[in-house]
Amino acid sequence: MKSLRKELWFEVPGRRGFINITPQVEASVRESGVKEGLVLVNAMHITASVFINDDESGLHADYEKWLEKLAPHEPTSQYLHNRTGEDNADAHMKRQVMGREVVVAITDGRLDVGPWEQIFYGEFDGGRKKRALIKIIGE
Amino acid sequence: MKSLRKELWFEVPGRRGFINITPQVEASVRESGVKEGLVLVNAMHITASVFINDDESGLHADYEKWLEKLAPHEPTSQYLHNRTGEDNADAHMKRQVMGREVVVAITDGRLDVGPWEQIFYGEFDGGRKKRALIKIIGE
Amino acid sequence: MKSLRKELWFEVPGRRGFINITPQVEASVRESGVKEGLVLVNAMHITASVFINDDESGLHADYEKWLEKLAPHEPTSQYLHNRTGEDNADAHMKRQVMGREVVVAITDGRLDVGPWEQIFYGEFDGGRKKRALIKIIGE
Repeated sequence: MKSLRKELWFEVPGRRGFINITPQVEASVRESGVKEGLVLVNAMHITASVFINDDESGLHADYEKWLEKLAPHEPTSQYLHNRTGEDNADAHMKRQVMGREVVVAITDGRLDVGPWEQIFYGEFDGGRKKRALIKIIGE
Repeated sequence: MKSLRKELWFEVPGRRGFINITPQVEASVRESGVKEGLVLVNAMHITASVFINDDESGLHADYEKWLEKLAPHEPTSQYLHNRTGEDNADAHMKRQVMGREVVVAITDGRLDVGPWEQIFYGEFDGGRKKRALIKIIGE
Repeated sequence: MKSLRKELWFEVPGRRGFINITPQVEASVRESGVKEGLVLVNAMHITASVFINDDESGLHADYEKWLEKLAPHEPTSQYLHNRTGEDNADAHMKRQVMGREVVVAITDGRLDVGPWEQIFYGEFDGGRKKRALIKIIGE
């Protein structure tokens, strides 16, 4: 069994943002030499997400608006978590809706994804350095 | 390490629907000959889902109503994504709530699931041919 | 390839609750002897969740309130599923928001997680014995 581990680092300037990391995941799969296996990609932070969806800016703006409706940032005093000195309780909720991780098949040495599937790092509490993990296992 | 890859094809006539794919996943596990391992089952489309829950028609009607409340289809003009000519922005949201994929354990050559766990393909933008992927690895 | 399977049993006295199971998952990883691999942790029940987030009581109270807003328990008659004699339709929804499972990397014989990542069993229909599954594969 082969395996490979990679960290991707991000610093999203604003509070929220989506970054397409498909090229980095593809490069890691090639580097691993794995032909048949699985790749796990997960946020290493609990106010961020890794998810698969469309690389379309209108949809990303829709997600921003929709997540803000489901779990509003303001007023920050509505969340007990923010009494710890944080103001990011909403980010812990938005990340649960979008998910922590994706697991993607590797077939014949490549990411085995549908034509529109793109892998994103979703930031909900930015302005500092944060990480995602890529872990590949297979043969 | 053994591996197996299968595609399942669907054409849900209406816009939305849930299809129990547990028998097909079980058959793939048997075909793979894997005794101990993992099976990934994921939608290959970004307006569809693979999830695990109950095979109970009342619950499925409840999901339909609930998801429509969280991310309404109408008015389609509320979503920027629909300016691309699509009318399926809500489907991209519903799929995030229900999830893209499940990973299930394989133990002693069988799906290792609880008594009520059933695997579903969830369609949120039907009326055309779409796929799910089954990928099995193990020994 | 090595593998290990463990069940964790819970009996949450009230209807809902979160239990930190990170120590049990870590112990299973050590017991497996796997140095590089993946661990799947999933609820075996469809009204429960396994998810990763912060071990902070204020946040957990926020989750409780937020999930109740997204999928209220009362009135139970609003859900068709509850005509089966159950009163837990809301639990089937809350579990979809929080997710069924997590997949975590194993690196150098340890759980490969970020500094704040903790693994929880999330109960949404307690008062009886229920299980989560740990499945480890790797080398």
